[in-house]
Amino acid sequence: MLVPVADIRRVALDALSQISPPDHAAIQVDVLVEAELRGVASHGLLRLPRIIRRIRNGVTDPGAAGSHEWRKAGFLAVDGQRGLGPVVADRAIAALRERVAETGIAVAAIRNSNHIGMLGYYAENAARQGFTMIALSTSEALVHPWGGRKAMIGTNPIAIGVPTGGEPFMMDTATSVISMGEIHDHANRGAPIPEHWALDANGNPTTDASAAKFGAIAPFGEAKGYALGLGFELLVSSLAGAAIGSDVKGTLDDTNVCNKGDLFILIDGPQASLLDYLEDIRAAQPAAGFERVLIPGERGRQAKERRMHEGITLPDDIWNEIRAFAGSTEGNH
Amino acid sequence: MLVPVADIRRVALDALSQISPPDHAAIQVDVLVEAELRGVASHGLLRLPRIIRRIRNGVTDPGAAGSHEWRKAGFLAVDGQRGLGPVVADRAIAALRERVAETGIAVAAIRNSNHIGMLGYYAENAARQGFTMIALSTSEALVHPWGGRKAMIGTNPIAIGVPTGGEPFMMDTATSVISMGEIHDHANRGAPIPEHWALDANGNPTTDASAAKFGAIAPFGEAKGYALGLGFELLVSSLAGAAIGSDVKGTLDDTNVCNKGDLFILIDGPQASLLDYLEDIRAAQPAAGFERVLIPGERGRQAKERRMHEGITLPDDIWNEIRAFAGSTEGNH
Repeated sequence: MLVPVADIRRVALDALSQISPPDHAAIQVDVLVEAELRGVASHGLLRLPRIIRRIRNGVTDPGAAGSHEWRKAGFLAVDGQRGLGPVVADRAIAALRERVAETGIAVAAIRNSNHIGMLGYYAENAARQGFTMIALSTSEALVHPWGGRKAMIGTNPIAIGVPTGGEPFMMDTATSVISMGEIHDHANRGAPIPEHWALDANGNPTTDASAAKFGAIAPFGEAKGYALGLGFELLVSSLAGAAIGSDVKGTLDDTNVCNKGDLFILIDGPQASLLDYLEDIRAAQPAAGFERVLIPGERGRQAKERRMHEGITLPDDIWNEIRAFAGSTEGNH
Repeated sequence: MLVPVADIRRVALDALSQISPPDHAAIQVDVLVEAELRGVASHGLLRLPRIIRRIRNGVTDPGAAGSHEWRKAGFLAVDGQRGLGPVVADRAIAALRERVAETGIAVAAIRNSNHIGMLGYYAENAARQGFTMIALSTSEALVHPWGGRKAMIGTNPIAIGVPTGGEPFMMDTATSVISMGEIHDHANRGAPIPEHWALDANGNPTTDASAAKFGAIAPFGEAKGYALGLGFELLVSSLAGAAIGSDVKGTLDDTNVCNKGDLFILIDGPQASLLDYLEDIRAAQPAAGFERVLIPGERGRQAKERRMHEGITLPDDIWNEIRAFAGSTEGNH
């Protein structure tokens, strides 16, 4: 169903505001809508019913925004107090923004917070405000070590935001070759998955998406992506004091306290113009089979502009579920 | 030729000390020998004749160690003053180590310095001393954008070091699918390269290593590795005030001032033990075709232990060239 963006925002906010302070609900909804606008449906409205159920089940506290402890001048340890992920992240980054005026660089290491949604949201916003950001987050163990059979590592995304003198640069990628959402999507459609995407529950290669759901996703780029994903797992878990490996829970279920970690490194500036270089890449002659050379993040930004006018296509069942959550006050508007 | 490690150190130090302060030469030689010990020959003794020629040509100043400007409490801007890369890096990291006791996190952004060698050297040393490190460096444009034909991006490696409570974790990988050194090695042996490693000078796929030398290497992991490598290029170049893309020179030639950038982010701690998790991965059942699951960095560390006893195999021509450089004082020992 194609729904105007304003309607999605209003209904989603109505739904979440039933059980969350409206200002916190607004931040959470903004992150979800932003993902939908950019075509990252796996981090979009799909997640709202789970967020609501987690609040109802008492494993998410929608009123919490995290407690801050500056362990050192540039090191902010955040106990998320089971708050909504984007609310805790937003508050932590705001504290970093103030601090880097003095320290130049600061880091927030967050534990005990919920899923923060699309990581690039934070990196792009930071870059738009003139800051460089490296953002990392861990997840349930869904990825197998290179050469292994079982999932032992999170999908551990990285996002980088850099001011350019114009539209900010933003890249955002998981260290898995594909998301578990994509595998579920293939399974739902009865479509096979490409070779090398995943192993089945016994650790054998499979092209059966339904079998892959119970197995493990490959790291992207073989041994190199494995090294990177594992490095992020260790770095985030140890700095944030968060769970690690198969102990991580709470971003994919309704009942477990979420114990993954998030890490935001914020750097003041720089002021350099990167526009000429990016334009050279954009204008480069494409290889055979490619229409043009893309800059990471820009296809999503173009999709956003289009969807702001045209609306967002949501699966009927998700839209109906969100409307049902909103339903009890829908008559008040 | 198999040479005892002590002999390599002595002769390399003799060679470099002819035209460099001995304490600076010692740091440079240590980085090169460490790469040899770990089996990263592309960052080993092979590079010493070039380092010496660059000093002779006046584009490297072996007496310089870099000037430091603390722009903010945690942001160290380093002008490398054309110094030897490892000397400038070492001095910058020493300054960060002192600073993070106060700030928890600090960054050194280095320009105008020479090739720093194997990035993991710095990350592992930092982790061994109880610090977490993220290290980034740029290089000449050797990598094509995903979907492009020409080299426009550096091989832009990342290294991560994390204290574990035991032997430190260290990963170190370029964002190219393979190094230009490997491609040259294939060309020298007349061996073909695998598909998808590189394009020829016209931007067409090739398995001819000699053609690939004049073309472009692929990013690792397709679009994801491209996004990462480009993100590092922008981040390092803009923060360090270094050259970008095809303007980068001086790590592969004897005559250009080196204008790439290096970035070291140092974080105090943490104290967490990661040993159980790493042991679980090490002990995991390997997939078909794999002997065991490896932890990044550990194969290199084992190779180092072996070579410390057995010696290092160097190509005759490189060893002879280094001995010739050392020759004029060899009689003094």
